[in-house]
Amino acid sequence: MDATPVWFMRQAGRYMEEYRALRQRHSILQLAKTPALACEVTLQPIRRLPVDAAILFADILLPVEVMGLKLRFAPGPTIDNPVRTDAAVARLPDAGAARNLGFVYDAVRLIRKELAGKVPLIGFAGAPFTVASYMVEGGPSRDYKLVKAMMTDRPDLWDRLMKKVRRVTAEYLKAQVDAGAQAVQLFDSWVGALSPEEYRRGVRPHSKWVLDQAKKWGVPSISFGTGTSGFLEDFAAAGGDAVGVDWRVDLDAARRRLGKRPVQGNLDPVLLFSNRKALKAAVKDVLRRNGGRRGHIFNLGHGILPGTPVENVALVAQCVHEMTAR
Amino acid sequence: MDATPVWFMRQAGRYMEEYRALRQRHSILQLAKTPALACEVTLQPIRRLPVDAAILFADILLPVEVMGLKLRFAPGPTIDNPVRTDAAVARLPDAGAARNLGFVYDAVRLIRKELAGKVPLIGFAGAPFTVASYMVEGGPSRDYKLVKAMMTDRPDLWDRLMKKVRRVTAEYLKAQVDAGAQAVQLFDSWVGALSPEEYRRGVRPHSKWVLDQAKKWGVPSISFGTGTSGFLEDFAAAGGDAVGVDWRVDLDAARRRLGKRPVQGNLDPVLLFSNRKALKAAVKDVLRRNGGRRGHIFNLGHGILPGTPVENVALVAQCVHEMTAR
Repeated sequence: MDATPVWFMRQAGRYMEEYRALRQRHSILQLAKTPALACEVTLQPIRRLPVDAAILFADILLPVEVMGLKLRFAPGPTIDNPVRTDAAVARLPDAGAARNLGFVYDAVRLIRKELAGKVPLIGFAGAPFTVASYMVEGGPSRDYKLVKAMMTDRPDLWDRLMKKVRRVTAEYLKAQVDAGAQAVQLFDSWVGALSPEEYRRGVRPHSKWVLDQAKKWGVPSISFGTGTSGFLEDFAAAGGDAVGVDWRVDLDAARRRLGKRPVQGNLDPVLLFSNRKALKAAVKDVLRRNGGRRGHIFNLGHGILPGTPVENVALVAQCVHEMTAR
Repeated sequence: MDATPVWFMRQAGRYMEEYRALRQRHSILQLAKTPALACEVTLQPIRRLPVDAAILFADILLPVEVMGLKLRFAPGPTIDNPVRTDAAVARLPDAGAARNLGFVYDAVRLIRKELAGKVPLIGFAGAPFTVASYMVEGGPSRDYKLVKAMMTDRPDLWDRLMKKVRRVTAEYLKAQVDAGAQAVQLFDSWVGALSPEEYRRGVRPHSKWVLDQAKKWGVPSISFGTGTSGFLEDFAAAGGDAVGVDWRVDLDAARRRLGKRPVQGNLDPVLLFSNRKALKAAVKDVLRRNGGRRGHIFNLGHGILPGTPVENVALVAQCVHEMTAR
């Protein structure tokens, strides 16, 4: 079928009862570290939803473990030995750490085999800023005080940290591609906490470095961030074959600002809690704003929320296909 | 002195030891409801900082109490009887509730007397969306699921709610002006959670209604929101003599988008934790992006954070004056 492709960030996750059933017996890290389980979770939405891609199930913070940090979920991600000093940055590995994430690559191989070509598999990693912000803050943050303090007061230290993080990130994505991932997405979930100038100075060069590497791997890359409407052109300048945008910007405005660049987005995930009529209207509005342009991957503006009705997710995928069938 | 005026959102608050000393003996609501204490808190930063305006100390949720809701701090604001049904909206007062906030107007009169013309006093209220979102969610929210569900699934109910909230908001601000407030600011702290379309459809008409009323009061109004970079033109179309922007947009870009409209902003409040050199450079960057245009009120992109060094706040005010002296 020739129609706009659609998949959903966090399409594998807590809103699905199949996933919750597995989570009763396994921790998030167990699911992510056991290839058969990661494969099962990745495939759950593929069985239920008419989506056009699978997205690898993994935790965004797996790479920080192999960089030597102690990660636990309490229940949110918590790092017991955050990276805040010269010594802590110096202790992080320079290269090669991603080879210790073999269970992810095993999962990729298994998923590709199970998918048997039904839909492509997207690999992913957290973008350097988002991963580094967890490493410095020690968990999620409201104000990003510590990470911004490092960026502002110790730009040299921040640069050393980001150079190590970006290298592991690129190695990790490359190994996913080598194992069979047919596209990669870089998630910069928290980049919207920054001012445009903070982004340009402290983050863009490092995201760009990863996305430049990705050009050599022969698969498309998607660069996604939330809260980027204030610096979307700068964000796009970091690279990525497609640019993911959240719901806080009109898709027509985003497309105007991004020129011919393919775009992914941007339905507000909260709208998946609405009634069918309102939801269909919202999908239609996103498509109307895309204006029939090629190079649109339909997605949400961020991940599916816990409690989202599965049938509404299916409805959106179906609507996108029907409304854009050519 | 002819220079760019500067004040700080939350310039009265927890980062000041004088404030913390008062808070040891009084709750937030006691401070806000006792005119002498609200006056004292409002004046604390005026004694310490070379700012060009005082901002009334009050809690953004005082109006919800006089609308019949039970507000407590636990420690964040919590509403025990949130507004989620037709019956709950019907129970809210239609008009006149703001007259029960006499302690605020007494505080305004007292502050004006104590200020004795030293600097003008800005009154304020939460914007209808931000206040209504607390009323519906029952407290702060991460995803605004309930309030967005009402906007999408029950637009009629949402409209009735917003019409009641906007009326109390306008009455409240008008009474502050009658008591002596020399400007008013409408705070739409959480409006950045919305998509541009959600904002235009469900919020802008109501903010506009309040700001249209304000035009008749003979004092300038400032309309402030965070996370508005995706729909800044729409936000500005709601009104306000000046438009407040957060740090997530470059000030030069904001000014281009807003034409001749005066603008307030937009230093990242986290930068107040930086060293003096970095902080001065950041202030200079904001001023450079303003490009010498008239109609700039220097402020942060959001409120001063707890733990901010007072001397850094003073430094910013001083730098703004020195760097813009004409």
